[in-house]
Amino acid sequence: MQKFKVTPWNVEGDVDYNKLIKEFGVSKIDKNLLDRIKKHTGNIHLFLKRGVFIAHRDLDVVLDKYEKGEKFFLYTGRGPSGHTHLGHLIPWIFAKWIQDNFKVDLYFQLTDDEKFLFKENLTLKQANDFAYENALDVIALGFDPKKTFIFTNTQYAKTLYSLALEVAKKLNFSTTRAVFGFDNQTNVGQIFYTCMQTVPCFLPSVICRKNIYCLIPHGIDQDPHFRISRDVLPKLNYYKPASIQNIFFPGLLKGGKMSASNKNSAIYTTDKPDEIESKIKNAFSGGKETLKEHKLYGGNPDIDIAYQYLKFFFEPDDKKLQKIYNNYKSGKILTTELKQICIEKVKAFLFEHQKKRQEAKKKINEFILND
Amino acid sequence: MQKFKVTPWNVEGDVDYNKLIKEFGVSKIDKNLLDRIKKHTGNIHLFLKRGVFIAHRDLDVVLDKYEKGEKFFLYTGRGPSGHTHLGHLIPWIFAKWIQDNFKVDLYFQLTDDEKFLFKENLTLKQANDFAYENALDVIALGFDPKKTFIFTNTQYAKTLYSLALEVAKKLNFSTTRAVFGFDNQTNVGQIFYTCMQTVPCFLPSVICRKNIYCLIPHGIDQDPHFRISRDVLPKLNYYKPASIQNIFFPGLLKGGKMSASNKNSAIYTTDKPDEIESKIKNAFSGGKETLKEHKLYGGNPDIDIAYQYLKFFFEPDDKKLQKIYNNYKSGKILTTELKQICIEKVKAFLFEHQKKRQEAKKKINEFILND
Repeated sequence: MQKFKVTPWNVEGDVDYNKLIKEFGVSKIDKNLLDRIKKHTGNIHLFLKRGVFIAHRDLDVVLDKYEKGEKFFLYTGRGPSGHTHLGHLIPWIFAKWIQDNFKVDLYFQLTDDEKFLFKENLTLKQANDFAYENALDVIALGFDPKKTFIFTNTQYAKTLYSLALEVAKKLNFSTTRAVFGFDNQTNVGQIFYTCMQTVPCFLPSVICRKNIYCLIPHGIDQDPHFRISRDVLPKLNYYKPASIQNIFFPGLLKGGKMSASNKNSAIYTTDKPDEIESKIKNAFSGGKETLKEHKLYGGNPDIDIAYQYLKFFFEPDDKKLQKIYNNYKSGKILTTELKQICIEKVKAFLFEHQKKRQEAKKKINEFILND
Repeated sequence: MQKFKVTPWNVEGDVDYNKLIKEFGVSKIDKNLLDRIKKHTGNIHLFLKRGVFIAHRDLDVVLDKYEKGEKFFLYTGRGPSGHTHLGHLIPWIFAKWIQDNFKVDLYFQLTDDEKFLFKENLTLKQANDFAYENALDVIALGFDPKKTFIFTNTQYAKTLYSLALEVAKKLNFSTTRAVFGFDNQTNVGQIFYTCMQTVPCFLPSVICRKNIYCLIPHGIDQDPHFRISRDVLPKLNYYKPASIQNIFFPGLLKGGKMSASNKNSAIYTTDKPDEIESKIKNAFSGGKETLKEHKLYGGNPDIDIAYQYLKFFFEPDDKKLQKIYNNYKSGKILTTELKQICIEKVKAFLFEHQKKRQEAKKKINEFILND
């Protein structure tokens, strides 16, 4: 049994999600909850059906309130340490689906301060530049500009800093040490930072001068921050935020998540067609060593990255996916063929995305919150 | 020998300044340095002559540079936890004298964030309101609006927060624990806060895009913050700030400094004439228990608060002061008479100050830096 470690800044080893769910103390998403969501949306999003979103905190509470006529808002974000990759899009695409179905606002935080503080060699200017690039990807997904508010921490600091102070006064070093594993060498910005990530959980309540429920779609590694939010917010007379948590998008290389800091592990939204092609061709596969063996014994789709991409993102048709699974497992489809299916899908998706990303440059001001 | 403890947030016991100077590692101001200052100012400010400013760091370096044609700027500030008292005015009046004589800019920081984080029952709104009140006192002292920039941390956070992050990345918990005595129960805002206090040491260098020397007139209890500034700034390629440090203005009660949190210990700039009178009448005195004893043995001016006020602030004439000293010591002047001299001086000063404070309301916008 391989060991693993998950913090908001680092994921090591092969993550056992059942164990992680227990360790974090979050709840698995069950059929019951899926049925409740479906009542409002009419269908179940691919990411729910295929187990990309697997856990939550208090999503049932948010639905209870929603069913009684109380709206919630969405909050998600991005640490701008590089260009956006496919893994980052998961919670954003899901947030868009929730926005469309529940007609709710989204607050999107770009944490340039965080990335500057936690990445030794990243300058604040670089993080800030990436925040702009990442915002283009958010907008390209088609969010409603009237309901979507994007902000970068350093650019919106006049508003955020005062609210972060309210959080900070209720949070001591001991707690951050226990939650994040901080020690004496941790820089004082890192210790304070989590307060900035808690602010959007109650920012709309401050702006609207009434308590509003918050739902955060996010990668499960970010849960420690929101555990702190859930601890502190009631002390400030705001609701605890609810969350829905996705597993990591598999990296192209064996094991681990797509990581913006390892270029070969990730497909970026800015990658050109030939880069996409070459990256997927070099991705870890479940194929056998030789063509002869593969045809004889078949491949292993469950560990094959190209197959995972189809399953998690690019092949929404259950029947088509099952057919690919069976054919790869039996050896009928070769690894190169499986990869080619994936390459075409990813290329088509990013071709469209890049067009919209270009258009986003013209309308970015409709989305940005500034002091 | 009584023990004492001095931190930026608490002063306990009778401070032995010689010991404190050694402990902090600052330099005493000597005759040599006074002569160098006099070369530029023509005279020696009362606060220097009477030992109110007793220590410094690198003031000689700043003078070296000044004499070679390199200007410096001034930085001081105030933690707005209440109204301004006479003790707060000391570094500000001195800063005004330096500004007038050296024609230099002053950056004045109002640390509402600090006071909110360190005062259990103070709200951010209250600290912010006091920041405004305190700013009026600064302006009332007659600073040049073209050379004086006043800002409140939460109101200027868009500018300050990014720069504080640069400091934070170079400062770990271990250092703040050693310098300030923080522990596991310290809130994370308190741990981060010192970064905000370091920012004005290099803010003008950022604004002017060139390195400028910084001189900070401040109460000696604030030295720990600037020790951190001196440690971090060279790592960010800015000059170490220099400082000149005043002792605490004596409180009206026995021992300790004037404290904004003990109303009876302090005379506020907003006090009415009858409050001034009654506070000084109730102040700790060096007089004997009975009139008879006093006339026979004389009083002790060295521990008498009214005398200290004349010496440190309100009787600039050396000969007059000496006469009061002698007459009180011999018993020729009674405690009530000594107090009356002090009352008249303080009333006259605050009468003028309150007029200017009223006028300051109209011109405050000429001084305030906002994002």
